[in-house]
Amino acid sequence: MDTQIPKLKETDFSNKKIKSILSISDFTREDIEKILAKAKELEGMKREDKLKILNGKIVASLFFEPSTRTRLSFEAAAQNLGARIVGFSDPSVTSTAKGEILSDTIRIIEKYADYIVMRHYIEGAARRADELTKKPVINAGDGANQHPTQTLLDLYTIQKEYGKIDGIKIMMAGDLKQGRTVHSLLGALTLFDNTEVILVSPKGLEMPQSAIEDANGKVKISTANTIEEGAKSVDLLYLTRIQKERFSDEKDYLKIKDSYRITRELVDKTNPKLKIMHPLPRVNEIDYELDDTSNAIYFKQAANGIPIREAILSMLEART
Amino acid sequence: MDTQIPKLKETDFSNKKIKSILSISDFTREDIEKILAKAKELEGMKREDKLKILNGKIVASLFFEPSTRTRLSFEAAAQNLGARIVGFSDPSVTSTAKGEILSDTIRIIEKYADYIVMRHYIEGAARRADELTKKPVINAGDGANQHPTQTLLDLYTIQKEYGKIDGIKIMMAGDLKQGRTVHSLLGALTLFDNTEVILVSPKGLEMPQSAIEDANGKVKISTANTIEEGAKSVDLLYLTRIQKERFSDEKDYLKIKDSYRITRELVDKTNPKLKIMHPLPRVNEIDYELDDTSNAIYFKQAANGIPIREAILSMLEART
Amino acid sequence: MDTQIPKLKETDFSNKKIKSILSISDFTREDIEKILAKAKELEGMKREDKLKILNGKIVASLFFEPSTRTRLSFEAAAQNLGARIVGFSDPSVTSTAKGEILSDTIRIIEKYADYIVMRHYIEGAARRADELTKKPVINAGDGANQHPTQTLLDLYTIQKEYGKIDGIKIMMAGDLKQGRTVHSLLGALTLFDNTEVILVSPKGLEMPQSAIEDANGKVKISTANTIEEGAKSVDLLYLTRIQKERFSDEKDYLKIKDSYRITRELVDKTNPKLKIMHPLPRVNEIDYELDDTSNAIYFKQAANGIPIREAILSMLEART
Repeated sequence: MDTQIPKLKETDFSNKKIKSILSISDFTREDIEKILAKAKELEGMKREDKLKILNGKIVASLFFEPSTRTRLSFEAAAQNLGARIVGFSDPSVTSTAKGEILSDTIRIIEKYADYIVMRHYIEGAARRADELTKKPVINAGDGANQHPTQTLLDLYTIQKEYGKIDGIKIMMAGDLKQGRTVHSLLGALTLFDNTEVILVSPKGLEMPQSAIEDANGKVKISTANTIEEGAKSVDLLYLTRIQKERFSDEKDYLKIKDSYRITRELVDKTNPKLKIMHPLPRVNEIDYELDDTSNAIYFKQAANGIPIREAILSMLEART
Repeated sequence: MDTQIPKLKETDFSNKKIKSILSISDFTREDIEKILAKAKELEGMKREDKLKILNGKIVASLFFEPSTRTRLSFEAAAQNLGARIVGFSDPSVTSTAKGEILSDTIRIIEKYADYIVMRHYIEGAARRADELTKKPVINAGDGANQHPTQTLLDLYTIQKEYGKIDGIKIMMAGDLKQGRTVHSLLGALTLFDNTEVILVSPKGLEMPQSAIEDANGKVKISTANTIEEGAKSVDLLYLTRIQKERFSDEKDYLKIKDSYRITRELVDKTNPKLKIMHPLPRVNEIDYELDDTSNAIYFKQAANGIPIREAILSMLEART
Repeated sequence: MDTQIPKLKETDFSNKKIKSILSISDFTREDIEKILAKAKELEGMKREDKLKILNGKIVASLFFEPSTRTRLSFEAAAQNLGARIVGFSDPSVTSTAKGEILSDTIRIIEKYADYIVMRHYIEGAARRADELTKKPVINAGDGANQHPTQTLLDLYTIQKEYGKIDGIKIMMAGDLKQGRTVHSLLGALTLFDNTEVILVSPKGLEMPQSAIEDANGKVKISTANTIEEGAKSVDLLYLTRIQKERFSDEKDYLKIKDSYRITRELVDKTNPKLKIMHPLPRVNEIDYELDDTSNAIYFKQAANGIPIREAILSMLEART
């Protein structure tokens, strides 16, 4: 059998069994704080020192589903640490097209690489991959399920803006049903103290009841009817994209679309200190006029993907 | 507002405001000469010394439109200088496919990379990108508009072959209407002394009148009816591809096709010292028999893409 | 003319004329043994020492036909030696799509790279490329013809498992007609002593008569009706995939499909020491229950692609 875990040196993670980054729910608060601290440390480190951390290591970047932001930021982060990349951005150029099953792909690619970063359209694909290999697997999104480095960079963004995550008041708005980023962020907030979340979503796209139940008691959860209503009492708006395809009748989409759009006027009127996050890509949810204001932190948020992914890779490296 | 230019150290460009390489028309003669001199210097430099110039820097290689030659030579040049690459060769694997607008893509990718090399099918895309980011943008072709590094490598090729660009006599032949390389080269020749250009093109595919007017007075421009006629009095033939698709009636294409083809026989008969350039890919405009003659300099021309792109990157680096 | 071979330093190959890796049949037994010895040496070498071997060199990875395993292992091997990669994994993003012929592509890309690794759908493409350039060309598969590094890694796998290749008894089963790996391996076995091969294939998918004739007298060749029958008297089963598309009538495929499947039960019953190789991807020819047994060596075989490709690259480097 091929399943024993490699012997570990001392690790930066509190949970010594963490070999891979699969789900934000695998982490304790202490783990997350260590990752955020490592990200901060890396932001202050000289380029030439960072290049030594993974020098000469190979990172497999396996995108069974297209993604620019996530793929490029992982590949930049890995190369900032001195690693080299092999991989694909499109499964049509792979053996998957010849009918190869995921487990065979993983068992072969683990021979070529020191780390496996993977995005897959099937929920649970990254965890399955992790079971098949001794190499660290980093989940870069598995279907509608998990995208842990997104949540880590969201938390890092909050911490950088407010100095802490405890006590943060967030309105989550838009499609709260399919959006894995908001499910995951809500889960992560349960690890922090006195957090509050206000949910605003169109009928039919509400936050799943199970996610609310898991967080209830640890996060103070309420709902609002409109962004305008909720904006007054939060620090942060976390907006997500509403996809037209989710509506069987386009008229329903057109009816609600503009209520889930944030404008400079709305911000000025309701809460001029409101900060706005968004996992991007946006379509028209955020007025471009907001881009150059201090309210807009979604580009900073995207930028935080680099130190977070560097932190993850360097902490896993420390364990090998 | 996010638009101030970063503080510059002393630069090799005469025009200190050059942050990006967008259009050949942004350059003075002095700028171009410095770039060509830098290219020559890099050709003589040891591999290990070149690797230090961009060591550990990240170059984003964003090809919203496919290209082998240009993409691979930029990626080779950047890596020859020690940089690492992130990017895509095909927009179908990007968020653009999800409807993301160019400005969002650029504002995100500038967080991941030190340089942005981009080819885009929309004219003006590179200049728009440059306005959105403090990072240097290198235009690797924007629609039918500009492709400045192609013009620089064309000029470098002429200089290497003839020792100088002043006084060069070039026949430009083929599709002079759509070919951005010939428009750009004609524009660049206005910066040099005593240059002459003979234009030969099928009816309907003539050099645009505006390009001729811009150059007139600085470049001596005339026309010839056939390549044969013009070949006697020039140093150089710059041939471009005539695309069948430009003709509404295929018969018109077939009628003129062979008049825009250069053969060994034609060269021997008219001007045995004639040198031939072509931006490539060719289809059948140049007889393969010419490939191994000293007349053929189109492969050397392609090779010159490497030192020119290295020069551009290293000169922009010197400014940061 | 552009065809003289560059001056060589002393080389590790017995045949000093070897500039490129095109076909396994170009090698002597001594050459192969040197490659396998170099692969072993590289497996024992420290990462930081390996990184110096091709430091700063550029490897062009040109896949005119998709492949995961081969492409990623070449790109990992080259980067393990310190080289950088330029290339494409899909010809639709190249000038080939604009009608550029292979020879032009090669003559341009040789200016950008120190090595050319290429897979092409046309038989003979790599040899043609080799004639056009002074740079080393490594054939990563040309149509149904050659895939020499696959054969080298197959031989390396056998040597690692049995300590030697002389005297090995192999059953080759499955589609022996189209499978270039089995043709090539059979040819290579002629260079070793006392090897035996048992062939098992469905009617119509037999090993080509020419391949048998070339090997006969040097390899002891026989046939068996079933895998079960042959398994008793061999060391090794080399199984290949039978593609449904090869059968005009799907019923014929379904009839024979299960006879070319190996299960744990079959192994236990016939030859518990039988080792199983497969060039992968498999579809259902090998029962997944076998994966974690010592019989299964197909994943180790895939892993051997790395040291073999590193060996090839470093031996070619030693010649430049």
